[in-house]
Amino acid sequence: MTQEQQYRDCIDACLACMDACNYCYVSSLKEYDLAMLRDCIRLNRECADICVFAADALSRNTMFAAEICELCAKACEACAEECEKHEHEHCKACAKACRLCAEACRSMAA
Amino acid sequence: MTQEQQYRDCIDACLACMDACNYCYVSSLKEYDLAMLRDCIRLNRECADICVFAADALSRNTMFAAEICELCAKACEACAEECEKHEHEHCKACAKACRLCAEACRSMAA
Amino acid sequence: MTQEQQYRDCIDACLACMDACNYCYVSSLKEYDLAMLRDCIRLNRECADICVFAADALSRNTMFAAEICELCAKACEACAEECEKHEHEHCKACAKACRLCAEACRSMAA
Amino acid sequence: MTQEQQYRDCIDACLACMDACNYCYVSSLKEYDLAMLRDCIRLNRECADICVFAADALSRNTMFAAEICELCAKACEACAEECEKHEHEHCKACAKACRLCAEACRSMAA
Repeated sequence: MTQEQQYRDCIDACLACMDACNYCYVSSLKEYDLAMLRDCIRLNRECADICVFAADALSRNTMFAAEICELCAKACEACAEECEKHEHEHCKACAKACRLCAEACRSMAA
Repeated sequence: MTQEQQYRDCIDACLACMDACNYCYVSSLKEYDLAMLRDCIRLNRECADICVFAADALSRNTMFAAEICELCAKACEACAEECEKHEHEHCKACAKACRLCAEACRSMAA
Repeated sequence: MTQEQQYRDCIDACLACMDACNYCYVSSLKEYDLAMLRDCIRLNRECADICVFAADALSRNTMFAAEICELCAKACEACAEECEKHEHEHCKACAKACRLCAEACRSMAA
Repeated sequence: MTQEQQYRDCIDACLACMDACNYCYVSSLKEYDLAMLRDCIRLNRECADICVFAADALSRNTMFAAEICELCAKACEACAEECEKHEHEHCKACAKACRLCAEACRSMAA
């Protein structure tokens, strides 16, 4: 895999994760069992913000790719761990996107 | 007032508003009456994001100052309107910061 | 076209434009005729920032979609106009992505 | 120093650094010796973006404070190192703000 392809894959994973996190955030705020989802809501937005920051930075070839991807991997892992506690479809889909993004970011950071 | 002072005042108002919105967001997510605060939570974060974007853009003398301040004023007004419905101290403080920021942004946009 | 599809198309256009602007930004900073590209460099980054902000906000179904898309359309048009003055391939590609994004944003804002 | 005061000091240092970086960015793009400032321009914006992201995240009490401050410290040190090579007043002021911000972020990350 070329370096350019690795960047491209990581950007795509970050954007897919941003999307899943934002969808989970909006959906969680509409759920009946809202009180159980406090941490989920916060982590969704925290993770979405970091993912979109990472995608933008990688697409301009930032000098801090390793550090940003390291941070992004941690946020994705924390968000996945929280989402995996819940049965909502949006949580499951979010956890999955977070795991894929964490993996892509770990490869980049290495 | 010089143009530079106007920029500076607007940046300060945006940053104070970001702070109040973020504090209201975190505090709302801890409240017992969480279900009543769904819109408040969303608007807090939406408004904080727009305020911090505006402050950053103004501090680099963006060519889109008028449009960004127009957007920021609208977000601040919507967030203030929502926060004014609630009795929590963090909501009242947030509404106040939003009103001040909206005013500063309206002056900039004019 | 469903509303969801319209959002999706606009997000995709914003992300494609962010990418083209960031590429043009990085490439312009390496060019020999750097002095001619001062405005191009500034507009590239301004436009990329607004595009990524718009994509993120749209993906969380922001209440300020119309205002954000209006702002994004203006930034894209300004960046396209500047890039169209230059002969570099990255400028031409950027101008094209900006025009497509401006169109998608104008539809959303309407 | 209370934890809250430490957060507040770090947010203030990040915002002062964002401001100095953005000012250096805009000023560098107007300089006659533009070609010497390519790296400075890129690092200014990279650093400003990370500082504003850090300030926003800290003000909402992010769970990733240590990681974000670690990243911010690295960006500030890189930007300071570059700015210290140049004689422009805006570069010197930027380097100073970067060094102060790096220090505040290192304390937070510890």
